[in-house]
Amino acid sequence: MPNRESFSTPFSGNAVAVLGLGPMGRALAGALLAAGHCVTVWNRTPGRDTELLALGARRAGSAAEAVAEAPLVLLCVRDQPAARAVLAAAGEALRGRTVVNATSITPEDARADAADATARGHRLLDAAILTPTPTIGRPEGTLLLSGDPEAFAAHEPTLRALGTVRHVGTDPGRAAAFDAALLDLFWTTVHGWVHALALARAEGLSGAELVPYAQGLSQLLPPLIRDYAARADERRHPGDRSSVSSAEAGLAHVAHTARARGLDTTVLDAALAVTRRAVEAGHGADGVSALVELLARQEP
Amino acid sequence: MPNRESFSTPFSGNAVAVLGLGPMGRALAGALLAAGHCVTVWNRTPGRDTELLALGARRAGSAAEAVAEAPLVLLCVRDQPAARAVLAAAGEALRGRTVVNATSITPEDARADAADATARGHRLLDAAILTPTPTIGRPEGTLLLSGDPEAFAAHEPTLRALGTVRHVGTDPGRAAAFDAALLDLFWTTVHGWVHALALARAEGLSGAELVPYAQGLSQLLPPLIRDYAARADERRHPGDRSSVSSAEAGLAHVAHTARARGLDTTVLDAALAVTRRAVEAGHGADGVSALVELLARQEP
Ligand SMILES: NC(=O)c1ccc[n+]([C@@H]2O[C@H](COP(=O)([O-])OP(=O)(O)OC[C@H]3O[C@@H](n4cnc5c(N)ncnc54)[C@H](OP(=O)(O)O)[C@@H]3O)[C@@H](O)[C@H]2O)c1
Ligand SMILES: NC(=O)c1ccc[n+]([C@@H]2O[C@H](COP(=O)([O-])OP(=O)(O)OC[C@H]3O[C@@H](n4cnc5c(N)ncnc54)[C@H](OP(=O)(O)O)[C@@H]3O)[C@@H](O)[C@H]2O)c1
Repeated sequence: MPNRESFSTPFSGNAVAVLGLGPMGRALAGALLAAGHCVTVWNRTPGRDTELLALGARRAGSAAEAVAEAPLVLLCVRDQPAARAVLAAAGEALRGRTVVNATSITPEDARADAADATARGHRLLDAAILTPTPTIGRPEGTLLLSGDPEAFAAHEPTLRALGTVRHVGTDPGRAAAFDAALLDLFWTTVHGWVHALALARAEGLSGAELVPYAQGLSQLLPPLIRDYAARADERRHPGDRSSVSSAEAGLAHVAHTARARGLDTTVLDAALAVTRRAVEAGHGADGVSALVELLARQEP
Repeated sequence: MPNRESFSTPFSGNAVAVLGLGPMGRALAGALLAAGHCVTVWNRTPGRDTELLALGARRAGSAAEAVAEAPLVLLCVRDQPAARAVLAAAGEALRGRTVVNATSITPEDARADAADATARGHRLLDAAILTPTPTIGRPEGTLLLSGDPEAFAAHEPTLRALGTVRHVGTDPGRAAAFDAALLDLFWTTVHGWVHALALARAEGLSGAELVPYAQGLSQLLPPLIRDYAARADERRHPGDRSSVSSAEAGLAHVAHTARARGLDTTVLDAALAVTRRAVEAGHGADGVSALVELLARQEP
């Protein structure tokens, strides 16, 4: 442990411990350092902190040691089992700290972790990072946090170094709920785009030729996003502009074209099956947003 | 047939016949009328032309009668079987005409129709309408056409009344190829959004709360669209920013969250299966755009 003795003041108003130095953990630590905060870093596997140390970070030999140095702890590891392992290893050192868990976890896990934190004498805020690493530390960087509002208020000035931070509710699971819904849209859209590129290639079109039209199409999304959301909230799905049956025809047409070219149509077939089920359930003449009702039908 | 006798001049430079008066056919005819063209309309089921007649359209009693009145024929019906039926009914009257088929059909069908047109003594351009009915007649309205470049050049001035028109190639199937790839992206994305709304609702979030973040996410798409296309064209998929394995983790996380809420996860499961297959094929550390290669693998 180099400079162990320089950790003279165990607490300082803007000291932050960052646990987990994958691409996102490094981006978070880097943004805090750039904003002048005092950052202690730890990672399970050594050697990920070289650049951060050069920028002034302090290295801790264990999660517990890192946590001992700061009132605010940022946790950013791969998944919930990893996050639980790190929190368990930090143990008693967490007492009195506020942990911001920026690991992608489920709303249920965030709620369970917050309850567990209270029982163990620390506070937990769950954070959902909505934007990729290059945005961290810039206004485009967007983080949603949920949980104890006092903990958020106490640390918001420090967290602002990461980008635009928003407290979206006292329910600790809320940030993760937003995150899951947005990841749902994101990854499904990514699958649509890679498939469109595969289909274009099979038809002799380059990706570059398709780009301007695909970007034009992405410009049609904001009003569609707004309109479908409004209809879902009102639970009214007029078919005046585009119907479930037109979606069925469109998907069948594309799946047929792709299959004729020997492409994998797993995702299109799935979307078509969901749409057909809606037609069979009598929603053919309804607006496409009516699919929201069908998808939720199996709710317990 | 009201005003049958007013059809004194069988041809006029900017006369257009519109066959098929669904929402899109009506929009096309309306835009042509608004631009001052002489429009003859026909629809299988009578009564869809009331508004158009009030705007100055002429009604024809059959497809053949409509076609006889104009050098340019716009065909816009539900699907290929319907389009074939209308073209067959128009028969000999098509001789010498240019048919712009704005019905959504496959590239193969467009090529077959163009060859058939040549054999029968007329010309066929296939058109893909990329934007919804309210955009028709405005610059945002976008139509891609492919096929005989002379036919396009001859009628482009008239077609411009419909919006932004682009000739994308002499291969008659090219417009349909663009269309299929863009519809692939569009309908898959729509499925992502309706599922995100269903998941949000199951987590107690309203659509309205999700809208600003989903719209923000749609703003991330243009650079992603460009980058994935460039990688697909180069067939190089570096995993420097986001890997197939991270996509697998993200999809598994969302599918798990959705299933825990009793939601239908057909589409997420399909996307996850495709992603897993790519990981199993050794693409885990590659960039997500590597999925393009896997989807096309079954090509004949
Ligand atoms: N990257 C992004 O753009 C982005 C965007 C939004 C959200 N996120 C979220 O941020 C989190 C971190 O992502 P990332 O991109 O930095 O990379 P990652 O590959 O998801 O996570 C890597 C980090 O997790 C650690 N880790 C894994 N298993 C562990 C365990 N059992 N115990 C302790 N540490 C463990 C790794 O330590 P070792 O070095 O020892 O393996 C490394 O520090 C994820 O939950 C991700 O979903 C990332
Ligand atoms: N609406 C849009 O925003 C949009 C956007 C891009 C592309 N398109 C494409 O435009 C085409 C037309 O779409 P649409 O929205 O106008 O409505 P649609 O419901 O797809 O088509 C309705 C039209 O097709 C006719 N039709 C159906 N079967 C027929 C048959 N066997 N013989 C003769 N006519 C037949 C209908 O005549 P009847 O009145 O007699 O039933 C009606 O005129 C479709 O291929 C669609 O994919 C539409």
